[in-house]
Amino acid sequence: MAPSTDPAVKSLRLESPLPLDSGQALDGVRVAYETYGELAADKSNAILVFHALTGDQHLASPHPITGKPGWWDRMVGPGKPIDTSRFHVICANVIGSCMGSTGPASEGPDGRAWAMRFPVITIRDMVRAQVALIDALGIELLHAVVGGSMGGMQALSFAANFPTRAARVLAIATTARHSAQNIAFHEVGRQAIMADPNWEGGDYYGRGKGPEKGLAVARMAAHITYLSEAGLTGKFGRRLQDREAKSFGFDADFQVESYLRHQGIAFTDRFDANSYLYITRAMDYFDLAEEHGGRLADAFAGTPARFCLVSFDTDWLYPTSESRHVVHALNAVAAPVSFVELSAPHGHDSFLLDVPALDRVVKGFLE
Amino acid sequence: MAPSTDPAVKSLRLESPLPLDSGQALDGVRVAYETYGELAADKSNAILVFHALTGDQHLASPHPITGKPGWWDRMVGPGKPIDTSRFHVICANVIGSCMGSTGPASEGPDGRAWAMRFPVITIRDMVRAQVALIDALGIELLHAVVGGSMGGMQALSFAANFPTRAARVLAIATTARHSAQNIAFHEVGRQAIMADPNWEGGDYYGRGKGPEKGLAVARMAAHITYLSEAGLTGKFGRRLQDREAKSFGFDADFQVESYLRHQGIAFTDRFDANSYLYITRAMDYFDLAEEHGGRLADAFAGTPARFCLVSFDTDWLYPTSESRHVVHALNAVAAPVSFVELSAPHGHDSFLLDVPALDRVVKGFLE
Repeated sequence: MAPSTDPAVKSLRLESPLPLDSGQALDGVRVAYETYGELAADKSNAILVFHALTGDQHLASPHPITGKPGWWDRMVGPGKPIDTSRFHVICANVIGSCMGSTGPASEGPDGRAWAMRFPVITIRDMVRAQVALIDALGIELLHAVVGGSMGGMQALSFAANFPTRAARVLAIATTARHSAQNIAFHEVGRQAIMADPNWEGGDYYGRGKGPEKGLAVARMAAHITYLSEAGLTGKFGRRLQDREAKSFGFDADFQVESYLRHQGIAFTDRFDANSYLYITRAMDYFDLAEEHGGRLADAFAGTPARFCLVSFDTDWLYPTSESRHVVHALNAVAAPVSFVELSAPHGHDSFLLDVPALDRVVKGFLE
Repeated sequence: MAPSTDPAVKSLRLESPLPLDSGQALDGVRVAYETYGELAADKSNAILVFHALTGDQHLASPHPITGKPGWWDRMVGPGKPIDTSRFHVICANVIGSCMGSTGPASEGPDGRAWAMRFPVITIRDMVRAQVALIDALGIELLHAVVGGSMGGMQALSFAANFPTRAARVLAIATTARHSAQNIAFHEVGRQAIMADPNWEGGDYYGRGKGPEKGLAVARMAAHITYLSEAGLTGKFGRRLQDREAKSFGFDADFQVESYLRHQGIAFTDRFDANSYLYITRAMDYFDLAEEHGGRLADAFAGTPARFCLVSFDTDWLYPTSESRHVVHALNAVAAPVSFVELSAPHGHDSFLLDVPALDRVVKGFLE
């Protein structure tokens, strides 16, 4: 394991080329990660948490750019549902991303940033890089793999492709395949980025400005899909932003407009537009059944793991029917699985928010 | 009524300034319109149809730019549900639009295009312009007003503000107010247009190119909301476009990507980006209750008209609950109203598509 160049970033440089689903192999892959809690002497207490599209390894510690608490700070820590006084929790930045793991902003073989010369990767490729990490850490069997949204896709892909490496698989608010509507929303985001003249075919690194406006629009469109209609109405309704009456202009009259604009702009401070292209592509390519001869049950035929699936009743991005589809496949191979649809007002983002019932399910499943 | 400058376009130039909800008044407004069927000698058989966001007056005759059949060709014509052998059907381009009625692309007082100097308009302003049209045509009482989506908003606004001018009000797949989620999707579209450097603050007229890329992205995002998740899955699923296997690139691998890209690009041939900004703004501002002291029922207190509301079970843009909300308000003032939720797989766009049950409802209500 080669040390990271940045002492604040834990990272592993893979010694062998990483084989990719595209048929290519990626040399010199770096996997940046974070850990919380002590690894037991027998290495039996490790939990690998997978992050979502725009997440990162800073699960339960402040984000190095924004300074905000880790994205699952409420779930991971001493005495919390994923209890770091018991478990050694590992979270790695996915390849293709921009928080220390190899991605399009990383230096390519010619010394320039990869940009769009970076190979298209898949969810399984992301998982392969993380299996290489736990190999390097000497962990044979994980106590659990856990993830929500794209993290859940990785958890399912891990179970299908490395069936003996995790005793428990917890997949939250996720799906075994991207639907036409899921692909459609991602395509809007990609087109928004690529339409920005500062995208420059992806070669914007070192030019001072990138496709921030396009990336902000992409984030705004995606953000709507993370929230429920009722949640948006409850949070914002038609309330005006800092004014008594409509402006009859194009400023952000409504709070929801102001909120979305802020979400879009803030995102560009911490995320690389090309990473957004590559990771959304990986998600759109995800179809676990297709990888296993067209039958989802066959993806899970060999696994001795226990599964837990959680969905949220207001999640319209990956609705309960998608989790149920996975549960039926697991039932077909007699895998032990528990499944719960939780009621929460927040839509897809519920897995990140204050949903005490989720805490209980997570804690209970990891016992 | 002044003649149109373009002999192919029927249009009316309003002789008085049009008062606007913003408090401004718009001089020299032109209202372009189309008619189908003969007006009876007593002028009792006229039906005013309102078009949706990107629609126009070419209801049942070929679109002058695309050459495609009128957008409601299946509904309007001799022997069709809106039977032009019985009724005189009028459809006007809304102000703010770009098909002959005054909008941001029209010449302003200084001889240049209005662009973003055009006043922000509302749904009620659109309706006022069309009432001026039927005034000029000498029609005192319409047999019916009819509209779907934004057309339905106009139908409801017409009923509320001109309660004695239509005997029947048919509002399909619509709402009495734009929700936070509705506003959010429109704001994404507006930001996509304004992020395009060719938008130039709206002053792109006569420069050869406008914000086509931004407008295409706006259309793509909106288009997803017009279709149901199941409809998209049925139509496209995860099928690939003209290829056997994924490309591991960023071309439109999936049919749904190709379809959306086409929808976005084709739209820019026929629609003005500033019109898109103004009309979405008008829709976002729409809140019929707010206009009437905060109580929707009060909007309908004075009307002797009969109402019919139609929603579609797969419409997630303006779901059935929004129509029901209108029906409850009408019930509260004892207005005669019929209401049906139709089952159709297409989502919001069902009002434009082949739904025989809708034909029957429309035909029956207009008897």
